[in-house]
Amino acid sequence: MPPNTMDTVPSLESCRALDAADPLSPLRAQFQLPSGVVYLDGNSLGALPQAALASVQQALQQEWGQGLIRSWNDAGWIHRAQAVGDAIAPLVGAGAGELTVADSTSVNLHKVLWAAIGLAQLRGRGDGPARRVLLTETDNFPTDRYIAQGVCDALDWVLREVGPAPGDHAQAPSIGHPRSSAVMAALSDPQVGVLLLTHVDYRSGAMHDMAAINRAARAAGVITVWDLAHSAAAVEVDLKAAAAQADFAVGCGYKYLNGGPGAPAFVWVHPAHVDAVEQPLRGWLGHAAPFEFDAGYRPAQGIARYACGTPPILSLTALQAGVNSVRAADPLGGMAALRAKSLSLTRTFIRASQAAAQAHGLHLATPLRDEHRGSQVSWACGPQAPDGYSVMRTLIERGVIGDFRASPRPGQPDLLRFGFAPAYNTHEEAWRAAQALGEALRHVARQGPRAAARPAVT
Amino acid sequence: MPPNTMDTVPSLESCRALDAADPLSPLRAQFQLPSGVVYLDGNSLGALPQAALASVQQALQQEWGQGLIRSWNDAGWIHRAQAVGDAIAPLVGAGAGELTVADSTSVNLHKVLWAAIGLAQLRGRGDGPARRVLLTETDNFPTDRYIAQGVCDALDWVLREVGPAPGDHAQAPSIGHPRSSAVMAALSDPQVGVLLLTHVDYRSGAMHDMAAINRAARAAGVITVWDLAHSAAAVEVDLKAAAAQADFAVGCGYKYLNGGPGAPAFVWVHPAHVDAVEQPLRGWLGHAAPFEFDAGYRPAQGIARYACGTPPILSLTALQAGVNSVRAADPLGGMAALRAKSLSLTRTFIRASQAAAQAHGLHLATPLRDEHRGSQVSWACGPQAPDGYSVMRTLIERGVIGDFRASPRPGQPDLLRFGFAPAYNTHEEAWRAAQALGEALRHVARQGPRAAARPAVT
Repeated sequence: MPPNTMDTVPSLESCRALDAADPLSPLRAQFQLPSGVVYLDGNSLGALPQAALASVQQALQQEWGQGLIRSWNDAGWIHRAQAVGDAIAPLVGAGAGELTVADSTSVNLHKVLWAAIGLAQLRGRGDGPARRVLLTETDNFPTDRYIAQGVCDALDWVLREVGPAPGDHAQAPSIGHPRSSAVMAALSDPQVGVLLLTHVDYRSGAMHDMAAINRAARAAGVITVWDLAHSAAAVEVDLKAAAAQADFAVGCGYKYLNGGPGAPAFVWVHPAHVDAVEQPLRGWLGHAAPFEFDAGYRPAQGIARYACGTPPILSLTALQAGVNSVRAADPLGGMAALRAKSLSLTRTFIRASQAAAQAHGLHLATPLRDEHRGSQVSWACGPQAPDGYSVMRTLIERGVIGDFRASPRPGQPDLLRFGFAPAYNTHEEAWRAAQALGEALRHVARQGPRAAARPAVT
Repeated sequence: MPPNTMDTVPSLESCRALDAADPLSPLRAQFQLPSGVVYLDGNSLGALPQAALASVQQALQQEWGQGLIRSWNDAGWIHRAQAVGDAIAPLVGAGAGELTVADSTSVNLHKVLWAAIGLAQLRGRGDGPARRVLLTETDNFPTDRYIAQGVCDALDWVLREVGPAPGDHAQAPSIGHPRSSAVMAALSDPQVGVLLLTHVDYRSGAMHDMAAINRAARAAGVITVWDLAHSAAAVEVDLKAAAAQADFAVGCGYKYLNGGPGAPAFVWVHPAHVDAVEQPLRGWLGHAAPFEFDAGYRPAQGIARYACGTPPILSLTALQAGVNSVRAADPLGGMAALRAKSLSLTRTFIRASQAAAQAHGLHLATPLRDEHRGSQVSWACGPQAPDGYSVMRTLIERGVIGDFRASPRPGQPDLLRFGFAPAYNTHEEAWRAAQALGEALRHVARQGPRAAARPAVT
């Protein structure tokens, strides 16, 4: 059987056999997971590593409570953000000292887009027509587009979006097809100076071909900025590989890195040009000598210049435990093993759920091909499907936690998302979730949608 | 005896009598303080509130571990930053819903300076010569000047600094004199559009006359931006009082608010113009409808537009406990009682330490007048004084934790700083610290300076 066909329906026994043979199975014991719950929302908030309980307690009681201000030196607080950055770096193909942890993904994206435009302008001097277009996708995560629009407004650049043709969204599966080729085609406009993409789409889980896009961008003289929010610790990323050679990247600490709610984010800049341009948020921790209290700002060399203010140490300490929970895979096969297991989990879930899903008018929004698929499965609610919000509420009440994403605009479908974290999810969970999805679809089809108001966060 | 003369040397007994009569004495039991330590660095990092241990444990184990993604609604994570902002608001004279918690002080300062310049430009249309000068002080906290320079560079404004005349710094006490009148004189230039000041100087503890400066700025058509890092929960601030009417303010969560290392910061904008301008970091949480995932950015109404990315919930939860530890003073006299105690503590420390300090060539860098003094005492090391770094190391080894600030430029003295947090420090501690300072001065005068390298953070 070719590995990517989805025509075999797995059994509970076959899933248990896959789990028994899973080289990463020891990792699950690192996490505190609620009993009776199948947690498939690690793409929004990763699970709690047991080690975070002890390390945050240590940071509270010993480091803060007893050490007080002395802990900036004695407990190494001042070096903690870089230490966590160094631990994240190999997960995305970055070198030690090239990636740091600071602020939120949004704030870091503001920094790198500003710097990327600065770099484009620096390179563009005397080089043909001025580049002043920042290219992204219509379907990029909204905050990325908001941040990008803000930077473009400030620097008098133009934000251009590659999107589906009108009517594309009438067919739900179209959102599952990565538009790498459309993006690459748009790079040919010589006005394009910077490209901002999210590697794995937050709605569909569709994954761009990073290496091909980076090659095309380099050939076109375009700077690349990648948002790895749904990639880090979920799929293999090699920012510096010869084939890829990305320019800038940011990513999120609280998804597959298990850093806890609102964990600080990471930022990476290719070492070849990290010192060529500045980022705009000139806080003291990005200064070359933060404790000399110089009159003027001198950016630090290297990635340290992407720090700004004082990092939130308690949240940073939890992130450290989260990153360690993923790095525990290193002796078991590392990111390659995590990726292989992730693909096996999503494949299992698709196979196990597709009959019931399709019978109820759902369409798969996630690519079937492994090289196009991130670490989640999204079922799109077609016009005949039961109310998606009600289906997800029913699932959650029955102990299967995925999430519901309402249609962002007319013609696009509501989505039921199921994220698979290879560090702790199992094939048996994928199977059980698929059964529960079938039951929830039947239940809502029978009972009709719920009238209850939706809470603030869906 | 007039209250502000410093000619009475307190005794241990008189200090104990003041502590016995202190209406705020019940507050100290809220904190976990190391035994055998007199902690006088709450101006850098406030002490650990016992309640933070339980609330962060709850956030870890129950909210994150058991609730997982559901806690954004069920545990109220999504509203926590605003809840903490509402708890801070009355401490600085802001109304509920006017102040929020987000990011770091540096990032928030970037936001409000950008918005303040936007407001100045909006008001300046057709109104005489264009205003394009941002005024601050040479001695303002370096990160504030770095951030201000960055915003000015981005928006083509000019950063102008009011500073001491050349040679001023030869006389150490001059740094202790607040330069409110010099600042007000500089407002008369019609090019000045925005004024950025730190209310209480981080080196000397000298405090500006906020009401007088705001009145002068309003009369001159200048927008005011205040950094309350060393003010919030330490001195009385009334941002909205008729006399004051500040325009923007930011402040720090980890000093007198006891929010823990790198706690998130706060930001306030006068409600009269909060909706008139945008801040530049367009993250999703500042959007009018963050969960609708609109194609375009629409800023939220009110202070919510100053949010950006997802807040670090664990650090935010600790900050909530810290703010509560100060609000516990409400039934005991509130900020007025905290301020009265703070002044009494600093007065006691000055009186108890001045004979030994002056005998060893130290000069008081902190104003004697209550209305000019924040919540710290700084002794400046004159040319004949023992090595200040060695003195502070000796003090810390003997259990009295203050901090050492090296001279930021030639002609300015090194400083020994002692912060007094009225929520937990006592008069007896002030007395003991003064004795220890005298002993440390004698010790270093006898032994000479230490050769040891200074650590990263001093």
